Amino acid sequence: MQDAADMPVTRVEVGLGARAYDILIGPGLVARAGDEIARRMAGVRCAVVTDENVAAVHLDALADSLGRAGVEHSAITLDPGEKTKSFGPFERVVDALLGARLERGDLVIALGGGVIGDLAGFAAGVVRRGMGFVQVPTSLLAQVDSSVGGKTGINTTHGKNLVGVFHQPRLVLADTAALDTLPAREFRAGYAEMVKYGLIDRPGFFDWLERNWRDVFAGGAARVEAIAESCRAKAAIVARDETEAGERALLNLGHTFGHALEAATGYDGRRLVHGEGVAIGMTLAHRFSVRLNQCSADDAEKVEAHLAGVGLPTRMADISGQLPGAEALLTYIMQDKKVSRGALTFILTRGIGRSYIAKDLPAAEVLSFLRENHPG
Amino acid sequence: MQDAADMPVTRVEVGLGARAYDILIGPGLVARAGDEIARRMAGVRCAVVTDENVAAVHLDALADSLGRAGVEHSAITLDPGEKTKSFGPFERVVDALLGARLERGDLVIALGGGVIGDLAGFAAGVVRRGMGFVQVPTSLLAQVDSSVGGKTGINTTHGKNLVGVFHQPRLVLADTAALDTLPAREFRAGYAEMVKYGLIDRPGFFDWLERNWRDVFAGGAARVEAIAESCRAKAAIVARDETEAGERALLNLGHTFGHALEAATGYDGRRLVHGEGVAIGMTLAHRFSVRLNQCSADDAEKVEAHLAGVGLPTRMADISGQLPGAEALLTYIMQDKKVSRGALTFILTRGIGRSYIAKDLPAAEVLSFLRENHPG
Ligand SMILES: NC(=O)c1ccc[n+]([C@@H]2O[C@H](COP(=O)([O-])OP(=O)(O)OC[C@H]3O[C@@H](n4cnc5c(N)ncnc54)[C@H](O)[C@@H]3O)[C@@H](O)[C@H]2O)c1
Ligand SMILES: NC(=O)c1ccc[n+]([C@@H]2O[C@H](COP(=O)([O-])OP(=O)(O)OC[C@H]3O[C@@H](n4cnc5c(N)ncnc54)[C@H](O)[C@@H]3O)[C@@H](O)[C@H]2O)c1
Ligand SMILES: [Zn+2]
Ligand SMILES: [Zn+2]
Repeated sequence: MQDAADMPVTRVEVGLGARAYDILIGPGLVARAGDEIARRMAGVRCAVVTDENVAAVHLDALADSLGRAGVEHSAITLDPGEKTKSFGPFERVVDALLGARLERGDLVIALGGGVIGDLAGFAAGVVRRGMGFVQVPTSLLAQVDSSVGGKTGINTTHGKNLVGVFHQPRLVLADTAALDTLPAREFRAGYAEMVKYGLIDRPGFFDWLERNWRDVFAGGAARVEAIAESCRAKAAIVARDETEAGERALLNLGHTFGHALEAATGYDGRRLVHGEGVAIGMTLAHRFSVRLNQCSADDAEKVEAHLAGVGLPTRMADISGQLPGAEALLTYIMQDKKVSRGALTFILTRGIGRSYIAKDLPAAEVLSFLRENHPG
Repeated sequence: MQDAADMPVTRVEVGLGARAYDILIGPGLVARAGDEIARRMAGVRCAVVTDENVAAVHLDALADSLGRAGVEHSAITLDPGEKTKSFGPFERVVDALLGARLERGDLVIALGGGVIGDLAGFAAGVVRRGMGFVQVPTSLLAQVDSSVGGKTGINTTHGKNLVGVFHQPRLVLADTAALDTLPAREFRAGYAEMVKYGLIDRPGFFDWLERNWRDVFAGGAARVEAIAESCRAKAAIVARDETEAGERALLNLGHTFGHALEAATGYDGRRLVHGEGVAIGMTLAHRFSVRLNQCSADDAEKVEAHLAGVGLPTRMADISGQLPGAEALLTYIMQDKKVSRGALTFILTRGIGRSYIAKDLPAAEVLSFLRENHPG
């Protein structure tokens, strides 16, 4: 950690005018968090929100770092897993923040994956109608996706992420060495979101990942660079559409199918984690685009080959256990919030790096595609 | 209602750039709501959030009006009272909105007083990260205060309004005839907020109210004019400071003391309703300003005489039952969110219509003032 603390970090700026902020990317940033925060926000008090898995491996380092920098802090540790992104824990976090007497200018620090980031960010967004917020993402998915762009929220019985606010962090500290404790399966899942940026509008990045993915998985400079490029890709889209009125929908590539599969497996992380659903969803989105004569079969195969090559699932049949039928999957899709006034909106593609928003897609078209691809 | 529907309405624009919206003020607007909504937002679907008291007297008229205009709608009816502004009912409303499959462009309509407006507005602000929202305020307080400015939220055990978002409505329909069913005590409580605008920065309006308050209570043109002027006053301040970074704090005149008294009486509406707390709080704020040599005793007496003249309480002794001691009241004040980094911020005044924000007020000064004015 001593050495890492002196390594240069890569900085990506999220350009949102008055709400602009920096993402710092590099090894050792958890141990530097206290300094980075104290330097930018003198006198703030903090509440760290985290989960038990992450607390076991990184909370002490963060707390020490805040302590050394003289930043007053407390911690709230929650159960790990998607179920934590729900009303009960949300109320618990809100209550703890108020109980700690934090003020508007004080900070909520999310230390963890996307679950913790989304939950803590939502709480920070509503306590005193908006407190300061800093993300210390510790999963790859959180570093390249959920910590960028200010979307926060929780799930309800009606679906994922249906309740929340847009609340931008003041700073994101992505410690690339913290990923070394992440289970391999979670790393792979996050990698799917990196691939997504290549597929949306950065074909050169997709090519680069095809060549360099082993180095990204191994750590070091390639990992830092891949995370930085992912953050740049997402930040560029977010800056053009902060509140998801239009173009930001591109970020949902693979997610309409993916969310339906997550719902269909009861959000059971043993069967499917988010990024795996996205990997299957992206493959399906490409195949669906081929079926609609928008994309070449070659490109769809290249996508599937790369995702499968790193060990990600790409087909519904790759999910363990029974899946509900195609009709039930369609119902999950219709419940997803990307349904606008009854018409289905999908992210389709004309090829690698050429995704686009397709509105008014007939549900029947989706249904017969689901039937063809359904393993059952 | 037929006649009222043809009466001209007064329009006050809340100038917030892309989030600008109209407040329509006049008799019969509940019966016109369907037309006003359908005209501005073709094809929207609505969920009306209301409480049992208001539902009993105005829900049918609103539902009929929406029905006649071809606007699809459902209704969620909650218990009346401040306790409804809390996590349980909030979750219930969120769940009902999702259950009704409303989309981002659809509408939550708050039909009721400030409790319903704040709760429904918060739910609208977080469901799908922000849905459409229309206020149909039916209490005087809601018409002149809570429906203007976009502050929404709920209470927690840690205090009032500590959790919420800024979420501007698309339209406010203030039916001045709907106030005829409001209990007299509630009308008086709302009147305190009108007086507040005079006291903040509109001395001419305060004079006008001193002369015309009986007509305002009676209804008709004076009531419409007083409500419109109050909305203009609040809208002007909100437009200069949408997210309460500075000047908007002036709107808290009387509220720091008032909230402490509400908390001290356990939010028991039989003992003290919000506007009554504000009336006492404004009187205290003026007396405190006299004590600090900022305001003339004459002005403070004029304020108290007017508030008492319309039948509002002006002293802690006017509250029925036991009050906690001065130290306990100070603790409530310190918990209030107008405390910034431990220093007390108060709205004080240099005279009628000359309020100002006083920062760094020593707690000891407040405590001895509370001791002097405490009835116990
Ligand atoms: N807000 C957004 O824009 C956005 C974008 C994408 C995804 N998301 C959300 O993100 C969530 C998924 O995020 P996730 O995949 O990070 O899930 P997660 O937060 O559940 O983390 C995955 C698992 O890894 C563990 N973990 C995290 N960091 C670790 C580390 N360094 N060492 C050891 N264990 C670690 C966690 O405890 C958890 O068990 C979903 O809820 C999804 O909806 C949000
Ligand atoms: N958001 C803001 O900016 C803001 C500003 C000021 C106050 N507030 C909040 O507003 C709330 C107080 O508002 P309120 O005084 O309207 O309370 P309220 O909503 O509880 O209404 C008062 C009572 O009058 C009843 N009622 C309302 N309209 C009626 C009608 N036309 N006929 C018969 N009964 C009717 C209600 O059922 C309730 O019993 C507080 O929670 C306060 O914090 C918010
Ligand atoms: Zn994702
Ligand atoms: Zn008030």
